Amino acid sequence: MNSIKRKDGRADDSLRPISLETGVQPYAEGSALIRWGRTQVLCAVSVSPEVPGWLKGREKGWITAQYAMLPRATFTRNPRAGYDDARVKGRAQEIQRLIGRSLRAGVDLALLGERLLTVDCDVLVADGGTRCASITGAWVAVRLALSGLLKQGVLKRDPAVDSGAIWAVSAGLVDGNPMLDLAADEDQRAEADFNLVFSGPRTLIEIQGTGERRGYSWSEVETLHRLCQGAGPAVQTAQEQALKAARP
Amino acid sequence: MNSIKRKDGRADDSLRPISLETGVQPYAEGSALIRWGRTQVLCAVSVSPEVPGWLKGREKGWITAQYAMLPRATFTRNPRAGYDDARVKGRAQEIQRLIGRSLRAGVDLALLGERLLTVDCDVLVADGGTRCASITGAWVAVRLALSGLLKQGVLKRDPAVDSGAIWAVSAGLVDGNPMLDLAADEDQRAEADFNLVFSGPRTLIEIQGTGERRGYSWSEVETLHRLCQGAGPAVQTAQEQALKAARP
Amino acid sequence: MNSIKRKDGRADDSLRPISLETGVQPYAEGSALIRWGRTQVLCAVSVSPEVPGWLKGREKGWITAQYAMLPRATFTRNPRAGYDDARVKGRAQEIQRLIGRSLRAGVDLALLGERLLTVDCDVLVADGGTRCASITGAWVAVRLALSGLLKQGVLKRDPAVDSGAIWAVSAGLVDGNPMLDLAADEDQRAEADFNLVFSGPRTLIEIQGTGERRGYSWSEVETLHRLCQGAGPAVQTAQEQALKAARP
Amino acid sequence: MNSIKRKDGRADDSLRPISLETGVQPYAEGSALIRWGRTQVLCAVSVSPEVPGWLKGREKGWITAQYAMLPRATFTRNPRAGYDDARVKGRAQEIQRLIGRSLRAGVDLALLGERLLTVDCDVLVADGGTRCASITGAWVAVRLALSGLLKQGVLKRDPAVDSGAIWAVSAGLVDGNPMLDLAADEDQRAEADFNLVFSGPRTLIEIQGTGERRGYSWSEVETLHRLCQGAGPAVQTAQEQALKAARP
Amino acid sequence: MNSIKRKDGRADDSLRPISLETGVQPYAEGSALIRWGRTQVLCAVSVSPEVPGWLKGREKGWITAQYAMLPRATFTRNPRAGYDDARVKGRAQEIQRLIGRSLRAGVDLALLGERLLTVDCDVLVADGGTRCASITGAWVAVRLALSGLLKQGVLKRDPAVDSGAIWAVSAGLVDGNPMLDLAADEDQRAEADFNLVFSGPRTLIEIQGTGERRGYSWSEVETLHRLCQGAGPAVQTAQEQALKAARP
Amino acid sequence: MNSIKRKDGRADDSLRPISLETGVQPYAEGSALIRWGRTQVLCAVSVSPEVPGWLKGREKGWITAQYAMLPRATFTRNPRAGYDDARVKGRAQEIQRLIGRSLRAGVDLALLGERLLTVDCDVLVADGGTRCASITGAWVAVRLALSGLLKQGVLKRDPAVDSGAIWAVSAGLVDGNPMLDLAADEDQRAEADFNLVFSGPRTLIEIQGTGERRGYSWSEVETLHRLCQGAGPAVQTAQEQALKAARP
Repeated sequence: MNSIKRKDGRADDSLRPISLETGVQPYAEGSALIRWGRTQVLCAVSVSPEVPGWLKGREKGWITAQYAMLPRATFTRNPRAGYDDARVKGRAQEIQRLIGRSLRAGVDLALLGERLLTVDCDVLVADGGTRCASITGAWVAVRLALSGLLKQGVLKRDPAVDSGAIWAVSAGLVDGNPMLDLAADEDQRAEADFNLVFSGPRTLIEIQGTGERRGYSWSEVETLHRLCQGAGPAVQTAQEQALKAARP
Repeated sequence: MNSIKRKDGRADDSLRPISLETGVQPYAEGSALIRWGRTQVLCAVSVSPEVPGWLKGREKGWITAQYAMLPRATFTRNPRAGYDDARVKGRAQEIQRLIGRSLRAGVDLALLGERLLTVDCDVLVADGGTRCASITGAWVAVRLALSGLLKQGVLKRDPAVDSGAIWAVSAGLVDGNPMLDLAADEDQRAEADFNLVFSGPRTLIEIQGTGERRGYSWSEVETLHRLCQGAGPAVQTAQEQALKAARP
Repeated sequence: MNSIKRKDGRADDSLRPISLETGVQPYAEGSALIRWGRTQVLCAVSVSPEVPGWLKGREKGWITAQYAMLPRATFTRNPRAGYDDARVKGRAQEIQRLIGRSLRAGVDLALLGERLLTVDCDVLVADGGTRCASITGAWVAVRLALSGLLKQGVLKRDPAVDSGAIWAVSAGLVDGNPMLDLAADEDQRAEADFNLVFSGPRTLIEIQGTGERRGYSWSEVETLHRLCQGAGPAVQTAQEQALKAARP
Repeated sequence: MNSIKRKDGRADDSLRPISLETGVQPYAEGSALIRWGRTQVLCAVSVSPEVPGWLKGREKGWITAQYAMLPRATFTRNPRAGYDDARVKGRAQEIQRLIGRSLRAGVDLALLGERLLTVDCDVLVADGGTRCASITGAWVAVRLALSGLLKQGVLKRDPAVDSGAIWAVSAGLVDGNPMLDLAADEDQRAEADFNLVFSGPRTLIEIQGTGERRGYSWSEVETLHRLCQGAGPAVQTAQEQALKAARP
Repeated sequence: MNSIKRKDGRADDSLRPISLETGVQPYAEGSALIRWGRTQVLCAVSVSPEVPGWLKGREKGWITAQYAMLPRATFTRNPRAGYDDARVKGRAQEIQRLIGRSLRAGVDLALLGERLLTVDCDVLVADGGTRCASITGAWVAVRLALSGLLKQGVLKRDPAVDSGAIWAVSAGLVDGNPMLDLAADEDQRAEADFNLVFSGPRTLIEIQGTGERRGYSWSEVETLHRLCQGAGPAVQTAQEQALKAARP
Repeated sequence: MNSIKRKDGRADDSLRPISLETGVQPYAEGSALIRWGRTQVLCAVSVSPEVPGWLKGREKGWITAQYAMLPRATFTRNPRAGYDDARVKGRAQEIQRLIGRSLRAGVDLALLGERLLTVDCDVLVADGGTRCASITGAWVAVRLALSGLLKQGVLKRDPAVDSGAIWAVSAGLVDGNPMLDLAADEDQRAEADFNLVFSGPRTLIEIQGTGERRGYSWSEVETLHRLCQGAGPAVQTAQEQALKAARP
């Protein structure tokens, strides 16, 4: 289990550069374009008073997400939902359920009131880690939408939970080595692939760990968890800088 | 964190009774009806030579799964795909992707040869833990289908991996208590919900852990993992007994 | 036109064994698993206050049915609606319309009140006669659901019509011989195929007679009708025993 | 059971006027517009070499039908498949299966060779009896298409069976009276509704009899059968005249 | 740019014969079958009080259209929406949007009141110019529906605008020659294809000009516009005669 | 008909600023992000050897386009195809047919050879003129894809036609004034709305002119045509600069 060189020269425990640009979709209540290495995801939040039917009259809000790739986000063109291939694929469904769940963990839905936040995550370029980039970028867009509601007096108290930002990062076992933040070429080679979602520095919201090519031991899980947790300061700093720049 | 009484009187670390009946769908290449507490899932394996397009000519097989609930498996009727509601729901897509991935981890796809195993998991009664019951039952149905192919001489060597059976079990945090194998009423109350898939006694294939109502700490993850691993002997014994009864 | 041996040794005018098990889907308002030879159909009734739009405010109820086969109910796997093949097939539509119509003939819809009974008939194993088994099993599930509504005081009078049970049986011309209750292999060979639905011993609700390989004469119709009517006592006894066992 | 006046003054055993105009869709291999009372159905036959997959290489042909109503064929507008309401309704599926089956009974599919006849029946005006009009009109269109194939030398022998024309007629019990050929207003009032398909004067191809408002006795079935059979000469004469006019 | 012979001997600036038959679909609030050369389109208007959601409460009406071809309107059979091919094709969508827009230009929607006119244009035979025939025929059907509403006293004033009839005609460049009213064979050869919709003799409602095989100059546009405008008297006379015959 | 102030102070005959950034989707064979005022469209070209079925074996290529808006490109969120609303809307179908047709006019399809170019136009921000921006941006992406094929030696000769660039611009009548390049607020107020597509400075490929609120005269058409043609130098310069920057 020797360390191998990564294509971009990164150490096994280092992140790709992350930056966030806000306001790219000016009509949205909140929007952020996240660049995470070559990966780019455009996140937009829409606020509406129409909560899902089962929630009506319960004085609580909801957050739902839709995730899609533009056809040429990837190396080969993938067909567009509603065209060649009428259905939304299982992978997209799985990811958007994860995004929605993660964001809801960061918001007090009772404080949000009977309001629906719909979060659109559209992948412009996909070089691995799109689900983690989506969660991380979408959190910034959600915070901007909540700021707008506070500024307009629609909300009296910020429903974002105290425990800290919602963020996510991936890790995996590549040629036997635990590695942080896999790019697409590494992801394809990985024996096992983990996505962890955090609320603040240490609290976990979601663990998804899949043995793609082999099973893995509990001690490998422990190592991957440590790698992911170590990425927290860098990811959260990128989020905070974007929020600060957007609300001077 | 005091222990509370569970509805059926079980200890926090004890499983519901599990039994497997094989051959229920006599036309299938392998079939098993798993009863796990009140939950019942009918698993059937179909063998066909038509691997997915992207695998053609690569001398490897594939395993795919479809998961569905009968409309009245649940307390209220849920609409049938293709009728009132044309699309397969995100939840079903997520589960069937997990089932397929888990079963593939237990089979050497090169030894399987250019062959597709389609595994249908239809939930007759849903009282929690349907995805773990599906994986556990489907593994038995897959083994029966492979035995059939060996007996007919279609396969020379058994493609099931040596490391042991594929099985799954859930655990969660309920009212602050770590508990094994949640029934539906416990699952609805749970703060966090874990599904673990194993290959043999100890090797992990998949971890999915979701904070439904709150985040969780790493030490809680460690406790839930221990509970799940402890269920291994009982679950694997149920599988082995069913296989022995089917192939005397 | 000599009599031929049937695979299972039955006489041309004899039925396969029929049994009904109730309560298999414990969450349904009424449920019955009918075994008719090798054929197995799981029937479940759901009660809801939402009658179809065109019936609203007319103080009458409705009964509708959905019929489907599990993918491996049959010798080869048939695709699942909503997956490989988005639409419900014509055959299923035709059968579920017949089931709904037949059951409505057995219930006074005004006495039922503004209430919808949705009857799900899911074929677990298909060895011929699934539509007749569905009607016969569904009638038992409907009776159980009505008993529940009476016991709860929701209904004051039983809306089941006096004339007797709704039941169905098939017959056909096989190699020139009129035969009762065709199994799948006989059905495939049949020149003509009849399904008759009765209300009580003698009253007809539906006749469907199809010349699959040749036309037929009126005197052949008369013979097939006599065969079907003769099966009444046995089929109705199976229904009554199941109802008695369920409501001691 | 007293005789009642029919809206158009007909006797209980008399047909509405039937006429057939051929060649209305000049690009079709065969076409006929049937007018049956106010009801109008446009029938067109398309010949293609592409038999369904399961029939390939078996040196036999097939006949399939599609039945649809124009949106304003009826008193109120019914939505168009593929627009407001994406799916083809169960009723249309049931009828087009009946049309296809009936026409296949009139053609020797081996003589037809590996060829598919697709028969489109589009109802321009619906005043009851559209399925019987469709079968009767479609038979003329099929005969014209077969004539064309014979004339072009594609076929050596006419695959139409000797036993005679395929035709259909309805009858029902209206206010207790057996009546032939129900118009829409009579159909809505009918207690029971029968459609019979014949091959030639006497041979039956299909019986569909439904108790819409009550069950019926076997002696009522016998009466309705006699009424339908009595309509044979008039319906078959209309078909023959149209064919003669089209092929002088 | 020499004049060439047209198949039917017409001059480059002459129309095919146009006739309109009203009342073909007697249940519709207005209907017209337009024959334009060999092309035949059946147009039917349905009146309902249900305006689209975005128009509710605004005291205005709306006109929407649906355009479809019967499968054998054309030389080869085209699949039916909702069957082999679930979706309405782009071409049909484009045409029906044009029809709706054109008809709305001829009606004062405030005078129409909160009422929806749905216009169905079903092409029975397609020999070129079906979109222009649809608009021209639909206008007659709309006028008949409006007359009916006036006669019933539902409307007090005729909402048809003063400026005159809505009509349409095509023209194109074929082998370099500007030609009026292209038949299907000419349309397939055309280098450029124009459809113009007018309100009265001279006012334009819509211009759609497409260079199918080459670009075109502004002076060619001017010539084609002159040809189309010259067809006005003949087309409008056909409309007026049909209206006069329908309302003596 | 007095001149009015435009929101952004432009003269009636002046364009908004246009810029094009290439290579935004690095995996595409050609890509360009066009910014036209606030409007932003991301255009990507995919090259594949799979021409549509009807073109196979004819030694010619094809260009097809798909146009979609991200959900929050607009002031209010519009649902995503394949989710809340399964079908691609008529408007998108109409626009993508126009884009495909326009680009095909600029390419010699025989020189392209049996190759399909799929052009995806995804609107990130929509402030009017998205179809013209799509055509103008897509042309640059197509030229880049063709350059790539030439550089790789796949093509010997550039199939782009000599006559010049494909570009498009809109104009309309707003409060009676002919105006070039309408922004969204102007478009909503417009009485008539024109989109013109050109090949080079003067040759027309497509004219689409719609009277949204009133008909228009031929002399108004002439004025709008002059306005559009006058925009040619600026639009084509923006295209050329982007191409030059991308291929130094």
